[in-house]
Amino acid sequence: MPPEDFLVQGRRILEWISEYLGSAGRYPVLARVRPGEVRASLAPSPPREGESLDDILRDFEERVVPGLTHWNHPGFLAYFANTASSPAILGELLATAVNANAMIWRTSPAATEVEGLTADWLRQLLGLPESFAGFINDTASHNSLYALAAARARAFPEAGEQGLHSLPAGRIYASEHVHSSIDKAVVTLGLGRRGVRHLPADDGYRMKPEALRAAIEEDLAAGVRPVAVVAVAGTTSTASIDPLPEIARICEEHGIWMHVDAAYAGVAAIVEELRPLLAGWERADSIVLNAHKWLFTPMDCALLYCRRPEALADAFSLVPPYLRTPEADEARDLMNYGVALGRSFRALKLWFVLRYFGGRGLADRLREHCRLASRFAEWAQASDRWQLMSSTLLGLVVFRYRDPEMGLDRNNQANERILDAVNASGDVFLSHTILDGRYVLRLSVGNLRTRREHVELAWRRLELEAARLK
Amino acid sequence: MPPEDFLVQGRRILEWISEYLGSAGRYPVLARVRPGEVRASLAPSPPREGESLDDILRDFEERVVPGLTHWNHPGFLAYFANTASSPAILGELLATAVNANAMIWRTSPAATEVEGLTADWLRQLLGLPESFAGFINDTASHNSLYALAAARARAFPEAGEQGLHSLPAGRIYASEHVHSSIDKAVVTLGLGRRGVRHLPADDGYRMKPEALRAAIEEDLAAGVRPVAVVAVAGTTSTASIDPLPEIARICEEHGIWMHVDAAYAGVAAIVEELRPLLAGWERADSIVLNAHKWLFTPMDCALLYCRRPEALADAFSLVPPYLRTPEADEARDLMNYGVALGRSFRALKLWFVLRYFGGRGLADRLREHCRLASRFAEWAQASDRWQLMSSTLLGLVVFRYRDPEMGLDRNNQANERILDAVNASGDVFLSHTILDGRYVLRLSVGNLRTRREHVELAWRRLELEAARLK
Repeated sequence: MPPEDFLVQGRRILEWISEYLGSAGRYPVLARVRPGEVRASLAPSPPREGESLDDILRDFEERVVPGLTHWNHPGFLAYFANTASSPAILGELLATAVNANAMIWRTSPAATEVEGLTADWLRQLLGLPESFAGFINDTASHNSLYALAAARARAFPEAGEQGLHSLPAGRIYASEHVHSSIDKAVVTLGLGRRGVRHLPADDGYRMKPEALRAAIEEDLAAGVRPVAVVAVAGTTSTASIDPLPEIARICEEHGIWMHVDAAYAGVAAIVEELRPLLAGWERADSIVLNAHKWLFTPMDCALLYCRRPEALADAFSLVPPYLRTPEADEARDLMNYGVALGRSFRALKLWFVLRYFGGRGLADRLREHCRLASRFAEWAQASDRWQLMSSTLLGLVVFRYRDPEMGLDRNNQANERILDAVNASGDVFLSHTILDGRYVLRLSVGNLRTRREHVELAWRRLELEAARLK
Repeated sequence: MPPEDFLVQGRRILEWISEYLGSAGRYPVLARVRPGEVRASLAPSPPREGESLDDILRDFEERVVPGLTHWNHPGFLAYFANTASSPAILGELLATAVNANAMIWRTSPAATEVEGLTADWLRQLLGLPESFAGFINDTASHNSLYALAAARARAFPEAGEQGLHSLPAGRIYASEHVHSSIDKAVVTLGLGRRGVRHLPADDGYRMKPEALRAAIEEDLAAGVRPVAVVAVAGTTSTASIDPLPEIARICEEHGIWMHVDAAYAGVAAIVEELRPLLAGWERADSIVLNAHKWLFTPMDCALLYCRRPEALADAFSLVPPYLRTPEADEARDLMNYGVALGRSFRALKLWFVLRYFGGRGLADRLREHCRLASRFAEWAQASDRWQLMSSTLLGLVVFRYRDPEMGLDRNNQANERILDAVNASGDVFLSHTILDGRYVLRLSVGNLRTRREHVELAWRRLELEAARLK
């Protein structure tokens, strides 16, 4: 592409993005298309001759954008909200252009070292000890897979060579509210769905330490080998945080790998008064958290912190241990710490975010999100119609409509109907979960552009739809 | 960030990129920094207060860029060269800004459907049958992990539930020249390093079908269960292509999953006269190929084609089979076909590439790269000093300096010394491999901006350094 075309089209795209980010609220947040509709609107086959960027961009605007669910919409209050912030977009633009591949140090020293530095900056903001080495991969799912592979290598040192087939069964312990990515990792690692023991949780949806201890002891007595305990800091349903110090103590007693899935809540440690919620995680062997959730960094950018990077290398380096050289952090060949050989320069966008907002700027924004969630929780609590389903410590409110005259099924249906109607408005998008058989609603404040007015609008829509039920 | 700042800084970045891409040849292609130097030049801790984008960009230009190895440099002839093409950069910019996450269909119908469509467009360009469903993930490494997980689920249907611990040993067959990502996948899956049987290759570095057949029969007799055969289409060392039809026949006879690692060479099927090289791959169960290698798409963008998507779902969907609904392609929840839950909109940049260049434009460029590699091979062949180490079918030339008066060790040292000196020039960057104990050089033409002059420059530098040995 001639440089002048690149500049002209690039500027046009920047203007589109600027307009889009400034007015994302004008789009219906949840896409209003039927399955297959987007695809059917596009050419079924590739062109033989090249097309102009004008044509490509027209299709993008007219056919692709209407099929997007807008994660940038300030009314996006579903799942765990996230954001493509402007500094991150610009950082990623540069990373894409320089197209660095940090598979080994020499193929991109800067990408390797900025990754180490950025992960370390975030470690400092989180108040984690220096003993944690940080890596950046695409998703928490892969990071948990890598961490549990390291735990498996530690529990079954023979497995790397001979495989699991002649070894005892291995087990990973987690509460019933653990994220499905943990189950997926365990199945991928060859431990089977039975390789995860889902422990009953307490009233606050947190792992019960006594249940953990009992399960480990029962397994040990039966010849099943404990591989890891996965503690969750911010469950998907309710953002509950497992009792980390008690879990750490049990892991230390038994010499079991402790993995903390802090994909959502980990970044809360940036906020001084929230950091105590994470106390105990510094005793973990590995921690995952997502910058692409609540840290204003677009997909994908997930941190893996590990106090035993040599165990990751045991799991993934094909260089036998006796041939490995002691490496400085800076000259690490990052391919040896995970499955992926190719490694894009994901750190750059996060480095831009950490610099542009600064530690205080990030903390202020996270604090404000928590405040907005608390406001919403207060409104729900003050109303007879609504019931809070868990305590609101971070940016997530879990609640449901409750009519005491309705049975469970009708109440569930009412909540589902309310949610569908609210989401159909296009103004706000909430999600749901199931807790003890109850269909409950989730409102997640985490988008940089979400203001009090959007949370109020969600509340008004919910009230309106609830009133319509009668 | 105020919209006007975003536009001003964005334009400045676009101009930097335009200038950079147009003159990437001015930078030393291989970074000239020592381990730790980039990191030491940057602040060791994050700022408390936010910084201006001016400051961030200054550090990027002055401290990060000098530490990059420039994959965009037209003299980048190492590994398998790749490119951040302009349409791909612009497509990725839009994808980053809209920040779509296609974990399930409803969280981004357009990203889900454009992924399916783009993979299908490329399938058509490659001449693969419609029975292949296409998925886009980050790397060939993860894609091979996913494909082999599906193969494992097929070979050991019990493993998903109970794990591998009480089952027979499983085996994956590949030539001794298979990429390390396959070994890594097999170890990750719990089959152990012994779970890969590396078969001796023929003179052309290709798997010997008779060796494969013998290995399978020996394993079957010993109670070891075959899981998959990995055929390579484009080995890392020499771009050799395993005998795909013979391998397919053996897999079909024994009912074994056939996986083709076509990470590099797969895209060659876009070129009519090269397509026969891949003949037989249409009989595979799964194929991986990288758009971020020889298809002008920046990191990361890797295709997984699978004729048995239901086997992928068996391996990765946590929804039990009896609860799964028959889904149309378009409403697929993509998270069920791999480890990662979060899925960025990687298809968009590739869709831009396929449209901007068109099928013919892509074929012309690939053809030209092959022509340049052939030219170089002719020069090497015509010289007494140099020896070609494998046939040059695609964009890769494998060769070495040879002085008949030197023994193997001194010849190896000579080649290493030549390579280091050539790479130190900063003009070109080649890589090496070891073949049968010989240190040999690799010249890979795959960057969109590489012209005859760059290949000639590499040749002159090599000749110069070889002459200096005397």
